[in-house]
Amino acid sequence: MSVTLADAEARDAADPLLNLRGRFDLPEGVIYLDGNSLGPLPKGVAERVAAVVSEEWGGDLIRGWNARDWIGAPQRVGAMIAPLIGAKPHEVIVADSTTVNLFKLVTAAAALAPERSVILTEAGNFRTDLYVAEGAANLLGRRFEARARDEVEGAIGPGTSLLLLTHVHYRTGARFDMAGLTARARDTGALTLWDLSHSAGAVPLDLGRDGVELAVGCGYKYLNGGPGAPAFLYVAEHLQERLMPALRGWMGHEAPFAFDDDYRPAPGLDRFLVGTPPILGIAALEAALDAYRGVAMDAVWAKSVALFDLFRALMAERCPDFTCITPQEPELRGSHISFAHPHAFEICQALIAEGVIGDFRSPDVLRLGLTPLYLGFADIWRAVDILGDIMGEARWRDPAFAVRGKVT
Amino acid sequence: MSVTLADAEARDAADPLLNLRGRFDLPEGVIYLDGNSLGPLPKGVAERVAAVVSEEWGGDLIRGWNARDWIGAPQRVGAMIAPLIGAKPHEVIVADSTTVNLFKLVTAAAALAPERSVILTEAGNFRTDLYVAEGAANLLGRRFEARARDEVEGAIGPGTSLLLLTHVHYRTGARFDMAGLTARARDTGALTLWDLSHSAGAVPLDLGRDGVELAVGCGYKYLNGGPGAPAFLYVAEHLQERLMPALRGWMGHEAPFAFDDDYRPAPGLDRFLVGTPPILGIAALEAALDAYRGVAMDAVWAKSVALFDLFRALMAERCPDFTCITPQEPELRGSHISFAHPHAFEICQALIAEGVIGDFRSPDVLRLGLTPLYLGFADIWRAVDILGDIMGEARWRDPAFAVRGKVT
Repeated sequence: MSVTLADAEARDAADPLLNLRGRFDLPEGVIYLDGNSLGPLPKGVAERVAAVVSEEWGGDLIRGWNARDWIGAPQRVGAMIAPLIGAKPHEVIVADSTTVNLFKLVTAAAALAPERSVILTEAGNFRTDLYVAEGAANLLGRRFEARARDEVEGAIGPGTSLLLLTHVHYRTGARFDMAGLTARARDTGALTLWDLSHSAGAVPLDLGRDGVELAVGCGYKYLNGGPGAPAFLYVAEHLQERLMPALRGWMGHEAPFAFDDDYRPAPGLDRFLVGTPPILGIAALEAALDAYRGVAMDAVWAKSVALFDLFRALMAERCPDFTCITPQEPELRGSHISFAHPHAFEICQALIAEGVIGDFRSPDVLRLGLTPLYLGFADIWRAVDILGDIMGEARWRDPAFAVRGKVT
Repeated sequence: MSVTLADAEARDAADPLLNLRGRFDLPEGVIYLDGNSLGPLPKGVAERVAAVVSEEWGGDLIRGWNARDWIGAPQRVGAMIAPLIGAKPHEVIVADSTTVNLFKLVTAAAALAPERSVILTEAGNFRTDLYVAEGAANLLGRRFEARARDEVEGAIGPGTSLLLLTHVHYRTGARFDMAGLTARARDTGALTLWDLSHSAGAVPLDLGRDGVELAVGCGYKYLNGGPGAPAFLYVAEHLQERLMPALRGWMGHEAPFAFDDDYRPAPGLDRFLVGTPPILGIAALEAALDAYRGVAMDAVWAKSVALFDLFRALMAERCPDFTCITPQEPELRGSHISFAHPHAFEICQALIAEGVIGDFRSPDVLRLGLTPLYLGFADIWRAVDILGDIMGEARWRDPAFAVRGKVT
């Protein structure tokens, strides 16, 4: 390859983010290209979770809600995510799953404009977004409309109640123009809800600058909160008091422990809390976010772009059978790179067997996450080199690599 | 007191459940009467959670979904809860919070009978049940009706779409007649949804025998799953395929990883999964359920009844200013005992200061959980004796005990 391993190692040595890798416990012999699906274990998380279990729960029992401020965890950890996405601290809370948070915001937002009939999204959006939107549309008596990616903007109109888009596409990595589409929808009187699952902690976001009013995102991808970590939810300050939750619970009440029969939404964003917060999961996410301490998202993005360019260039040389389906221009994509290949599933399994962990996405995509906090240029070089060997020797044809698990 | 500490200790010595206390890590010097609000830490949980964090997440990364069967956790742990509530293994899953599970079942069940207009519940039900029911009724265009406890049965009629009741009342401990009310509702063509939050793991339940079709329950009370543990959801086998979720997510799809744009509900109960399962929380609950290994719920209940009788008798002697508001007859109540007193808040704080941890419930209730797995007769004796001292010396009048935390 025209770039040598030594070249890549030299780039690592000059990388200002090099030391961040030390913030993670990565297994030996693994090149982890799936941090966009499940982030690895940051250092400090195991200790923090152990302390919450043994000292806080075990030692303080029910008193932990006050003494350890478990009750304030959704807001406290939300405020830690806020600077990563360009939000104010009180515009983000951590709660539930991305799916449940989508449902909360779709139902509350659509109710603001009862005379508008359409919940509009992209066909091929991540499926949970589609299923939530269609289920909520049925409940609300609205029309669910999923349009091809290049027709979405043109389909925004006076009948649009809510535009629901995923900022970075889970499969291709293609990125929507957040500011432009939000403004376009707002001009017609519609709200936009952004799913940041493949953006938060990866691409620079400035929800305030871009006029974003509603967003949700995932805690276990780039934010490294652990398997099934709680998700986050964002509502711009000016909109918070105008939204009335349809999915309501005691934790979102103005006075949760007054036990009033009548529902009165809590001030601000707290109204979107519903059940008791999942303290172990939030504690893991809180400790995990420490990996972003002092890290400028612009520097993370600059390195992501460089990793992408190297990956793409090496693949073109060493693995020309793969078609890169991720846009090349940085501003049009997120922080993963995807390649189409008719045998992507078996190839992905063969890569994993060699310690290069990527992801397969149906029907034919090899998806590889570029996570600058713990990946270096030499990792990319080695990953492509191993893939080149697998392809050259057709090792992926081993029938063992065609066996599918429950999650594939 | 007519029963002496020595008498109580003799009863402990003869208690067949005595050894179960060794299954918990209880702090020294604490008598824990709040296991109905947050169960204490069972042994083995800290080790299990640590292994999931460090070995499974840290070591296997994304591969844990298959290699450690994280993906099967909701069903696997649901099947562990099933025998505690008289359900079949495939009738219970663990997911989300009690509130979110209530919402899933209220919306899906009410949709089965579109011509029936009323979602009926008890006024003074736990607030999250009320808020969910009212929010869902608004979404579905139904009428929300909350009737006084003694009027609920009479209010069931041909217009009733769904009856939503909490089996054991969170404040008074009063227990509804599960089989009778379920049958009464079914006779008029209505479904009944039972909230088992204060029943599961405490009172004997046989959902199959009692004809129960829908239920939810809490993971962190008697099941000891830790603060904000995931909740469970039950649907009787015969009803599972008839319910179409309104709150839909990718994990409830027939083929979650096929990424079809069209929603097709998974077979059976799996359709009520929505987002990615919270693995740390489920792992803690799974390990915690081991405390019930080999334990007969009838034996647990028999001891609960004996603890209740002792508590009530000692209180009448030693603390006559308190009014017991929990029904005396075992079949009419759950596993906590509640006393009204105008200064219940301060008294509860004074008790906690002495290491006797109970709960205050607004406006004037001292609520004490009777959890036979780790409480003995001598604990009850000592708790009442300490309360007697606090009352006799009016120690609760210390102004420090009037200070309220966020959670009170």
